[in-house]
Amino acid sequence: MRRGTIRTPAFMPVGTAATVKAMKPGDVEAAGADIILGNTYHLMLRPGAERVARLGGLHGFMGWKRPILTDSGGYQVMSLADLTKRSEEGVSFKSHLDGTRHLLSPERSMEIQRLLGSDIVMAFDELVPTTSTREVQAAAMERSMRWAKRSRDGFDAGGAHAEGAALFGIQQGALDEGLRKASADALIDIGFDGYAVGGLAVGEGQEAMFGCLDFAPGQLPADKPRYLMGVGKPTDIVGAVERGIDMFDCVLPTRSGRTGQAFTRQGPVNIRNARHAEDQGPIDPACPCPVCATWSRAYLHHLVRAGEILGAMLMTEHNIWFYETLMADLRVAITAGGLTAFADDFRARYQQAGENK
Amino acid sequence: MRRGTIRTPAFMPVGTAATVKAMKPGDVEAAGADIILGNTYHLMLRPGAERVARLGGLHGFMGWKRPILTDSGGYQVMSLADLTKRSEEGVSFKSHLDGTRHLLSPERSMEIQRLLGSDIVMAFDELVPTTSTREVQAAAMERSMRWAKRSRDGFDAGGAHAEGAALFGIQQGALDEGLRKASADALIDIGFDGYAVGGLAVGEGQEAMFGCLDFAPGQLPADKPRYLMGVGKPTDIVGAVERGIDMFDCVLPTRSGRTGQAFTRQGPVNIRNARHAEDQGPIDPACPCPVCATWSRAYLHHLVRAGEILGAMLMTEHNIWFYETLMADLRVAITAGGLTAFADDFRARYQQAGENK
Repeated sequence: MRRGTIRTPAFMPVGTAATVKAMKPGDVEAAGADIILGNTYHLMLRPGAERVARLGGLHGFMGWKRPILTDSGGYQVMSLADLTKRSEEGVSFKSHLDGTRHLLSPERSMEIQRLLGSDIVMAFDELVPTTSTREVQAAAMERSMRWAKRSRDGFDAGGAHAEGAALFGIQQGALDEGLRKASADALIDIGFDGYAVGGLAVGEGQEAMFGCLDFAPGQLPADKPRYLMGVGKPTDIVGAVERGIDMFDCVLPTRSGRTGQAFTRQGPVNIRNARHAEDQGPIDPACPCPVCATWSRAYLHHLVRAGEILGAMLMTEHNIWFYETLMADLRVAITAGGLTAFADDFRARYQQAGENK
Repeated sequence: MRRGTIRTPAFMPVGTAATVKAMKPGDVEAAGADIILGNTYHLMLRPGAERVARLGGLHGFMGWKRPILTDSGGYQVMSLADLTKRSEEGVSFKSHLDGTRHLLSPERSMEIQRLLGSDIVMAFDELVPTTSTREVQAAAMERSMRWAKRSRDGFDAGGAHAEGAALFGIQQGALDEGLRKASADALIDIGFDGYAVGGLAVGEGQEAMFGCLDFAPGQLPADKPRYLMGVGKPTDIVGAVERGIDMFDCVLPTRSGRTGQAFTRQGPVNIRNARHAEDQGPIDPACPCPVCATWSRAYLHHLVRAGEILGAMLMTEHNIWFYETLMADLRVAITAGGLTAFADDFRARYQQAGENK
């Protein structure tokens, strides 16, 4: 696509506020990321979509040359904003930053994503908890499909498509196979450049998520990218790739980097643990990243314990390398026809060590 | 010296806790720093000097290959530690981190700096406020000279000198020319590889500091490096170089970087100011640094306002480049015989804009 090829399966580091937290764009690129994600909700509030447009768009503003996917703001507005009011029109809310009143609708979301200069624009959808009743789920899914059509129309009217941007629809329907099928059919009827599986990774657990992924991706066109939003842990990603998912985003590698958790092929490591205080080895001897080539666990332990910014920088960089290297390994395994063997081996090594311990 | 040549006049970025805050060592080197400073007080408490030694010394620990100067801990123990007790033996204190009790003496300071693997070791001295009476100043200076001799002996006994490290003495005597002369003579009598002007930049103001620098450096050997500790603002540095100073260290560029102040040839800039919100220009069009080559004031304004780590990273990197570029400009001016003209021009441009506004 415009601004560069996206190798799939792809992991998109999250650049919420026009920065992948604690990393320079060049280091994100060096880690192997073909695309990053920006958050419409955060950017519309600060610095503002019109301001970003006046400053040349998100790419120029933050110094990232490759593709950017922007979400629609639908998820964040429900989880972060104050005094939200939902209607068929959209969601009105007060900014969590300064209390100003805003409206996010399919049309406004398309406009904002166009102003940001997004390469992959996400349709605006409505989310309800996976624990809601089937009636609530069905109503939210149906409204999301009406909003998907308005997103398609708004996107086309804005000319973003003509400029080379892509528009993705988002499948809803919680964990219900029938609702997921109805949603997929509605989206296919409208027609999109790619399709996301939405509404997962919201606390339902890996088993329930995989249960849904056993049917949901198969309801979407196999010749278009399928994107699982907000996922996830390394074993989530491996299992989702086995189930047909092509794209991922998650704050886990960056957020964990700022709280002292490092990912390794043997499972996550809490670098704050006293056992690392004099460990001269790298986070992961098999890791090709610049952090593992240069610094010891002992040094990272010291930095994180001391609250040093460099600790957040180096831990984040390692984690992004871990995720991007995992995606590269998955691509190699798929090409070689060995995805199942790779996935089984990855899980065995990773789970033996005890994920999240 | 060992581990690389130090071009003078030199500015040493401060790497208090084994990190120049918010910068990777490679980026500090790229900015032009030949040497950095580490703080004995902080490192003895966390991660501990013996631990750093077991981990291969400060250079290997933090991944910095060029020379490191370590201070003696004398200044920080008086300004940061709890329940300090001074005696002829040294200073006993409670750690501000965990309340453990420690002793810092000339001998222990030399041992710690040897364990850290310091290339330039500073003598352990006693500081009193410049507003103290002449009697108090004289007594502190005289004790500092006795401690300088014990530092020399401890350094020599530890074998650090034989390994290629250098030992600097520190001139005390506040703003009093007679005390400064007595201190200089005592240090010269002991014999050091370099000499620091200590006890300045502690609130006395630029005029008083320059008044002292009109005589203090001239009392020290001209064929050895003369180091003004803890200085300073850009115009402080320019004026001190005119008065014969060769080396500087200061937290100002790094600390300012974390609070939104950027240095430019036209004076400091508060990037948080609303007038930068849509300014597409760099911090300083004349700056050769990677930050000014890539990012706008508008982007930095956004990052700093949003509290993003990348804001601290980029502002710090620019500021270190500003300081190191200033030193390079001073070296060129000195070589060309144009120091006075350079200094006058620098002050005129810098002060016109209003320093610290």
